[in-house]
Amino acid sequence: MLMRIGANSYGKSECRLVRIDRRARAHRIQDLTVSTSLAGSLDKVHLDGDNTGVLPTDSQKNTVYGFARRGIDSIEAFGLELARHFVDTQHSIHRATVAIEQTMWHPVDDISFRRGGELTRIATVRVDGPQAEVTGGLTGLTLLKSTDSEFQGFARDRFTTLPPAADRVLATSVDARWRFGRIEGVDWDKVFDLAHQALVQAFAGTYSRSLQQTLYAMGEAALDACPELTEIHLSLPNKHHFLVDLTPFGMDNPDVVYYAADRPYGLIEGTVSR
Amino acid sequence: MLMRIGANSYGKSECRLVRIDRRARAHRIQDLTVSTSLAGSLDKVHLDGDNTGVLPTDSQKNTVYGFARRGIDSIEAFGLELARHFVDTQHSIHRATVAIEQTMWHPVDDISFRRGGELTRIATVRVDGPQAEVTGGLTGLTLLKSTDSEFQGFARDRFTTLPPAADRVLATSVDARWRFGRIEGVDWDKVFDLAHQALVQAFAGTYSRSLQQTLYAMGEAALDACPELTEIHLSLPNKHHFLVDLTPFGMDNPDVVYYAADRPYGLIEGTVSR
Amino acid sequence: MLMRIGANSYGKSECRLVRIDRRARAHRIQDLTVSTSLAGSLDKVHLDGDNTGVLPTDSQKNTVYGFARRGIDSIEAFGLELARHFVDTQHSIHRATVAIEQTMWHPVDDISFRRGGELTRIATVRVDGPQAEVTGGLTGLTLLKSTDSEFQGFARDRFTTLPPAADRVLATSVDARWRFGRIEGVDWDKVFDLAHQALVQAFAGTYSRSLQQTLYAMGEAALDACPELTEIHLSLPNKHHFLVDLTPFGMDNPDVVYYAADRPYGLIEGTVSR
Amino acid sequence: MLMRIGANSYGKSECRLVRIDRRARAHRIQDLTVSTSLAGSLDKVHLDGDNTGVLPTDSQKNTVYGFARRGIDSIEAFGLELARHFVDTQHSIHRATVAIEQTMWHPVDDISFRRGGELTRIATVRVDGPQAEVTGGLTGLTLLKSTDSEFQGFARDRFTTLPPAADRVLATSVDARWRFGRIEGVDWDKVFDLAHQALVQAFAGTYSRSLQQTLYAMGEAALDACPELTEIHLSLPNKHHFLVDLTPFGMDNPDVVYYAADRPYGLIEGTVSR
Repeated sequence: MLMRIGANSYGKSECRLVRIDRRARAHRIQDLTVSTSLAGSLDKVHLDGDNTGVLPTDSQKNTVYGFARRGIDSIEAFGLELARHFVDTQHSIHRATVAIEQTMWHPVDDISFRRGGELTRIATVRVDGPQAEVTGGLTGLTLLKSTDSEFQGFARDRFTTLPPAADRVLATSVDARWRFGRIEGVDWDKVFDLAHQALVQAFAGTYSRSLQQTLYAMGEAALDACPELTEIHLSLPNKHHFLVDLTPFGMDNPDVVYYAADRPYGLIEGTVSR
Repeated sequence: MLMRIGANSYGKSECRLVRIDRRARAHRIQDLTVSTSLAGSLDKVHLDGDNTGVLPTDSQKNTVYGFARRGIDSIEAFGLELARHFVDTQHSIHRATVAIEQTMWHPVDDISFRRGGELTRIATVRVDGPQAEVTGGLTGLTLLKSTDSEFQGFARDRFTTLPPAADRVLATSVDARWRFGRIEGVDWDKVFDLAHQALVQAFAGTYSRSLQQTLYAMGEAALDACPELTEIHLSLPNKHHFLVDLTPFGMDNPDVVYYAADRPYGLIEGTVSR
Repeated sequence: MLMRIGANSYGKSECRLVRIDRRARAHRIQDLTVSTSLAGSLDKVHLDGDNTGVLPTDSQKNTVYGFARRGIDSIEAFGLELARHFVDTQHSIHRATVAIEQTMWHPVDDISFRRGGELTRIATVRVDGPQAEVTGGLTGLTLLKSTDSEFQGFARDRFTTLPPAADRVLATSVDARWRFGRIEGVDWDKVFDLAHQALVQAFAGTYSRSLQQTLYAMGEAALDACPELTEIHLSLPNKHHFLVDLTPFGMDNPDVVYYAADRPYGLIEGTVSR
Repeated sequence: MLMRIGANSYGKSECRLVRIDRRARAHRIQDLTVSTSLAGSLDKVHLDGDNTGVLPTDSQKNTVYGFARRGIDSIEAFGLELARHFVDTQHSIHRATVAIEQTMWHPVDDISFRRGGELTRIATVRVDGPQAEVTGGLTGLTLLKSTDSEFQGFARDRFTTLPPAADRVLATSVDARWRFGRIEGVDWDKVFDLAHQALVQAFAGTYSRSLQQTLYAMGEAALDACPELTEIHLSLPNKHHFLVDLTPFGMDNPDVVYYAADRPYGLIEGTVSR
């Protein structure tokens, strides 16, 4: 029986690209992982194996490297250039998505660098015909508060054994994706810095009654700091730190020794909008 | 400035659960990783830190273990039970999503087992008020064809250097998610077995002009085999095998020695529907 | 102050190599990851940056692919060929180590294959001048017994809270490395099959009073099955399965529902010799 | 046939431990992953399943948490305390190895922290009866030089195709383990800081003719900076950055655009001693 081909796309994932700018005495390094994905009038390749409209994923990879030669301003701008190129030049392609991760490097001297592992900057650009949408963000930013966090007054049912906590350790690994309301004239790097800083400060400065409340506070702070943004989505795993019961060994444990669990973990997700 | 809290959810991710049925002489083992996610009227926890409507993620984890005591028929059925429970019993919760991965174990004798690593069975159940939607699937099924695959006649642009391939190695790691048209009276295990078999046979039996064409053939075969399914989404990385150029060493390489690349990789995604 | 350069080596790690033999109607696939490491008279490169005696790691990689063209009998034999080649042809190199992992593929039909994920076959060959030593093995073989395992009568101290277990789940992921007493005239594949089978059967067939006892039984069985082997080293993580306490929910749990922990885990290691 | 049990050990791996010191206004966080391993007179457990001399791995884990209550000066000192405790208090245990990894956290304010991902501090302590040996170190420190690195004048054979490089990108992820000549009166944190700094500065400051030469320079610098150390072992993967050939697209590439490869990778290992 003949079926229909529905939503589909194809592309090249995880092109590892390092660009070095040696023009100034102090070199500059950009370390990106770029994934492209194209969609459009592609029924014939699925139904008949007719590749006429298929620009190879290998060519998409080459395009990433070729465009990098000219220069990379920010990952948001680079993603826009790439996505527009595919939609503008390929007859069969109507939509392009470019997702980029940027690994941070810190200078040791003019020509030496050490990799920072504290977070990864991310951007996703979607171009659909003349429309373009840009999402910036970060992932892997791990934060912890040693106090000023409680979790009490929650719903209870037959399966509830959790005692209320008046003072607990709160830790999470922030995954944030913010959507830009416009794409012309944006200082992408400045927005990244401001949003990043707002997220950290809101996490630190909020007395937390729940991770949900902290999530909202973080989102609100980032939107407050960056008028260019219309909304921000946060995905916050609750990285549980359980106080170890030392009483069997004749010891107390006044919020000193914790077991840091890997899984299961709570996962709090939400979007904050204007 | 006050912002709005938009779409949000919270839950417990990756509860590791092993259930052993010892009633028959030959024991039976079920090895699941269960993630729950709840949504509903939760504005107050985000805006005010009022936890009244929040069933703790710890209780969700306990529910998973408590429900497992009664018995697990299939991961689809178990997910339905759990998701309905949360929506039916929690005033503030209107929607629940339960995602389950099942690791396979093969019997060695009545009480001994070895873990199979060839694929993971997956299911996602979404309950929204009285509505329920079930998706089954598998991930990690890695397939390779040593011939009967070509890639020719594709679009070319300035960045295209790929030569046409009249005979290439085709390899992929199948991620498939199939949607059920109904949820009453379904033999979930039988659908899994038939869909799994159909995917493998279609990959093997299709002379491939592109991975897109193979994707469609695989989806069509699964839908043909399982009338319960309305659509299937396939995500197929093209695991590139590049022929190594041995001519610098005075050797030919008539499709014998390949370099298997990790990344970048092609990624072909599509939905096949009735 | 001038220091000394002590033990050192260099090489190419993780060359991904797939070889396809198409001579018979049913194709045959070998999927290896090969790492080479060379040592010898290399003081000058460390102390003076004099590369005269350094065969590039890139050349080592090329050698792996070039040698694969001729044919691969088994990973042990392939490792021996490669290691001897480096020692025999490079003036400055006196010792070579080649470590190989083999991923298993199972035929679907003559030209189609599915990857098996249940274990990886491994071999390490060390050639030191005229001497050669071969170690075979496997890793990632995960086994579980649902009963016939206890852990009682152990030492207790101030920090001991573990109750004795008269019936527990025993699970491990076997990492085994067996040393060959000779290297001429060995049927490497047969030894692998026999040792693999002996390890599984001994795990299944031993009533276990501790994982240490099971380890010894597994090692003994492998040596019994394979006279070519002089010793076997086993590294067995104790993959803990904890019975979940369901009494707070008014339920019993007669060895039915378990939480499978990731870490910490016990780790039992030992060598069994003739 | 009865075999012999040779070298063996058992312990608990990867105990996740977070300790928070709240005594000062600015809290202090220590995030460790601790693995213990014990050896001694343990033939009976292997041969007869007699657990009399076996302190459970669960008790070892408890000991880690119990000892943490008292305070952790440095991971080297904590490892010494733990290892000595097991050897001193368990009749059957003659040797204990404690391996610790420390994840770094940086303060945001007095009670908030962000995790640093740039390296992990490590220590391994081995106590054998009255003897103790301490190794400190670090892993995951990723460094890159954009110039001042060449690789020329190397050996060539039939399989060599690598062209000499007069100016290349040099990148590595440092794994360093330094051995202390004494264990009394050592300022462990100061040695860590000095060795860490010396490794980074030597990598940056050495004009590199090969990664081996850089390895030696790094080891020499660390020993120079820390008289407490007798030797240092370095394991340095050569994280290849390949210049992309853009000429097919009509572009030059004057050391600007690179492909960062994952594997295979060169691996240079060596010990530098006084």
